[in-house]
Amino acid sequence: MNKTYTLLLGAAFLAFPALAQQKAEPLDAAIVEKIKQEGLQKSQVMDIAFYLTDVNGPRLSGSTGLAKANQWTKEKLASWGLKNATIEPWGTFGKGWEVEKSYLALTKPYYQPMIGSPKAWTPSTNGPVKGQVVLVKATKEEDLAQYAGKLKGKIVMAEVTNPIKTTFAADGSRYTDEALHKMAEPVAPTEGRAPMSDERMAQMRARRAFVTKMNEMIQSEGAAAILSSRGGSHGTFFTTNGAPYAMDAKPALPEFEIAQEDLARMSRLLSAGIPVEIELESKTRFLTEDPQGYNVIAEIPGTDKKLKNEVVMLGGHIDSWHAATGATDNAAGVAVMMEAVRIIKALNLQPKRTIRIALWGGEEQGLHGSRGYAQKHIGDAKTKQVLPEQEKISAYYNLDNGTGKIRGIYTQGNEAVAPLFSEWLKPFNAMGATTVTNRNTGGTDHLSFDALGVPGFQFIQDEIEYNTRTHHTNMDTYDRLQPEDLKQASVIVANFVYQTANRTEKLPRKPMPKPQS
Amino acid sequence: MNKTYTLLLGAAFLAFPALAQQKAEPLDAAIVEKIKQEGLQKSQVMDIAFYLTDVNGPRLSGSTGLAKANQWTKEKLASWGLKNATIEPWGTFGKGWEVEKSYLALTKPYYQPMIGSPKAWTPSTNGPVKGQVVLVKATKEEDLAQYAGKLKGKIVMAEVTNPIKTTFAADGSRYTDEALHKMAEPVAPTEGRAPMSDERMAQMRARRAFVTKMNEMIQSEGAAAILSSRGGSHGTFFTTNGAPYAMDAKPALPEFEIAQEDLARMSRLLSAGIPVEIELESKTRFLTEDPQGYNVIAEIPGTDKKLKNEVVMLGGHIDSWHAATGATDNAAGVAVMMEAVRIIKALNLQPKRTIRIALWGGEEQGLHGSRGYAQKHIGDAKTKQVLPEQEKISAYYNLDNGTGKIRGIYTQGNEAVAPLFSEWLKPFNAMGATTVTNRNTGGTDHLSFDALGVPGFQFIQDEIEYNTRTHHTNMDTYDRLQPEDLKQASVIVANFVYQTANRTEKLPRKPMPKPQS
Repeated sequence: MNKTYTLLLGAAFLAFPALAQQKAEPLDAAIVEKIKQEGLQKSQVMDIAFYLTDVNGPRLSGSTGLAKANQWTKEKLASWGLKNATIEPWGTFGKGWEVEKSYLALTKPYYQPMIGSPKAWTPSTNGPVKGQVVLVKATKEEDLAQYAGKLKGKIVMAEVTNPIKTTFAADGSRYTDEALHKMAEPVAPTEGRAPMSDERMAQMRARRAFVTKMNEMIQSEGAAAILSSRGGSHGTFFTTNGAPYAMDAKPALPEFEIAQEDLARMSRLLSAGIPVEIELESKTRFLTEDPQGYNVIAEIPGTDKKLKNEVVMLGGHIDSWHAATGATDNAAGVAVMMEAVRIIKALNLQPKRTIRIALWGGEEQGLHGSRGYAQKHIGDAKTKQVLPEQEKISAYYNLDNGTGKIRGIYTQGNEAVAPLFSEWLKPFNAMGATTVTNRNTGGTDHLSFDALGVPGFQFIQDEIEYNTRTHHTNMDTYDRLQPEDLKQASVIVANFVYQTANRTEKLPRKPMPKPQS
Repeated sequence: MNKTYTLLLGAAFLAFPALAQQKAEPLDAAIVEKIKQEGLQKSQVMDIAFYLTDVNGPRLSGSTGLAKANQWTKEKLASWGLKNATIEPWGTFGKGWEVEKSYLALTKPYYQPMIGSPKAWTPSTNGPVKGQVVLVKATKEEDLAQYAGKLKGKIVMAEVTNPIKTTFAADGSRYTDEALHKMAEPVAPTEGRAPMSDERMAQMRARRAFVTKMNEMIQSEGAAAILSSRGGSHGTFFTTNGAPYAMDAKPALPEFEIAQEDLARMSRLLSAGIPVEIELESKTRFLTEDPQGYNVIAEIPGTDKKLKNEVVMLGGHIDSWHAATGATDNAAGVAVMMEAVRIIKALNLQPKRTIRIALWGGEEQGLHGSRGYAQKHIGDAKTKQVLPEQEKISAYYNLDNGTGKIRGIYTQGNEAVAPLFSEWLKPFNAMGATTVTNRNTGGTDHLSFDALGVPGFQFIQDEIEYNTRTHHTNMDTYDRLQPEDLKQASVIVANFVYQTANRTEKLPRKPMPKPQS
């Protein structure tokens, strides 16, 4: 799941005319029972997740790890009998990047290893670097002048002004019934998160411009590396990119994201006038041979003469950040979606419409894979000019909210589907999946479909440790996966996809969004 | 706080004849108010803790770090006007040891840095070592034969059979009123933790003997290093020693304690038949010049002609484990005890009896510092033959249960002191310190006094993150300290020490324990 887009969630709420709600067809109980049997008794979801995480490793966009995972998933899907399994380019991504060595330690006033990782797309250090750390205390351009001539060969960090707070709340949580009830209530558009004020926008722009200035200054002064942190505690740190991935991106400085404990200690020492020296080394590799990005696509062809040209899609992004193995973001989603098609295929359910699974690349850098796919196959998100396929895709189901079991689904404001979804959830109510909310959710690849008038949905999932420990952290590992949750999600998704594939009509749609001016 | 001794806590409960309870003298409210003012408004407790942790670094027994901390605390105490500040040897400890480099990374099937630390007193690796990891699956001697000839140059680990469980409980906690009430209830001796059964003892001995055998085999087969874990999660790992510290200890293999996530991944990969290679390096240094261990002692001399030869002691251990800076175990206790004497000195309270602070070394390896002190000044713990000073020490107060505020005190079964302690806690009831329990607590240095008939006490403290995140972990850093809790503890200790120093009588005592056979 992509953070930038999460922030836009509230603002994305759209008012639109209520549509006539569709009456739900009764479910075939025998088929639902078969899906449950296959998915709960013979699950392969944890095996899939093991290969995606432990065996494959990190899957940063453009990296060898992602290429390996694409290959493995394509072959796995084909091995189950899916057709047209392919690794399809979605457009130009940029440079690949991966870590070949990372070492960080405090060496003065005493030795202690530090926890951290190079930020994505930052270059190697010039071998092992041993040097003084300089604390830059600056909030505006005038503050920078005092550091002129003082940063050459130094390792630079900003003051840590947000000390770690001990939490007396659990890292792991599940939705309470109360929270789910609340989520099911309609929200008036005004209740959503207010769009950012012009003043706040201007402040953010100014802050960003200042940080760019500061980094340029640090670089032009000849600093050896930058240290930073985006929070976390107890050895968990969050990560992201430290430089652009475009083929023609300007070179940046080596930069490490490190555990807040390590950064805060240096900040306290330097603020007290006590010199700090560290040793660090990063060896990173840029992959520039193939600037293209890819999605993995495979199909269970439809069996109904009239309907097999129509498609039900499901998917999730397969790329991850680099400091762990992207277990909850989003090997979990990929494993569940793969397991869902495996269940349908294993049961030989003969869907009327074609079922197409898509594992997206480049999600973490801006939903690139699904957007590229939509641009190529569905239409132009700006002009809203659509291709013939737009009409043929009944729905797209996405999973990208961690390892938690499914508690319901967002209709994304498509109120007409609510009664269908409620019916489809019924056999799983006792497993905790109860809630259909007409609210929107953002942050991930269903938006690329929703933007072009194709019904795109994301499920409600229990948080577990998503925001506290796993989302974009160095601790997003296989250990965090909840086997029973992933099995539950697999059977629910299998049922949704099967029902969508086999009903008489395509799913009802919201009106096409207006072209962007 | 020392873990081995914690385990003996329950078994240590002793029945003894009830003593006449002492009537509490009324407190001088003006003095209590002054103590609060000084300790809450002008506290230096966080400054002291900053120097002990961030500035000084880890303080493993025998290390340069501990020697520096001893020097710093001695000078600091003297700078406040305490007398007889001295670094006093308590006996033979063994070799000092410290880390000069630690690096660990997975290199196959892909690169990823790992979180870990050399175990204390393990030797350096032979420079950087790159090699295959071998999973040893063995629970009895016969299982070992299969590894003969297969471990040369390899990095060896045991299978991880306890996968991390996601917790839905908070890392941080405080005592509820209910828990405190329960703690205040008397426990019948039979209700304490039952002594270990002969069968269980035999099992443990057998297990220990097997592990020794296995390690000897791994070493004699020429393995390069051992990897292990003692739990923890999200980047927090627990640590201890990996080899003995005696001057004549046999050489051990390099051994690293690593994050459970890293170890479990390798265990899963190897169990699935997927080769794992890692790179690691440890450079450790043994300090053999001075095998002695030390305590730091300083005094505020008594002012009453008759009583100044009597002593009230307070203290806590200053040594720590090596993977962090020992903030809650036990810079917190040291900082509070130092702050308590600073408060008394700053207020020029002129205690009748002498107040003596002791900062113990070697606690983590078996309460060595306080036991050595007791042996030298109080008597023999085995024969119970005592020296004249035994009569003169009215009480010893210890603090070593983390950063949490004081919620009360254990009388250690000395029921006669309960009314005094209740009275002394009264001015701090509103700050959460309410409970006097006649129960025992173990695990730390008050036991060395208790064993010789000198009233020795440990306070009840809120847990905060002690058992989940900080006690013997790589995350026991300054960030974990709770400033308000430490201030509260400082003023309560200052009051207890002052009251003990100034009352007419020494504190009532339990009968002398029987000599050990």
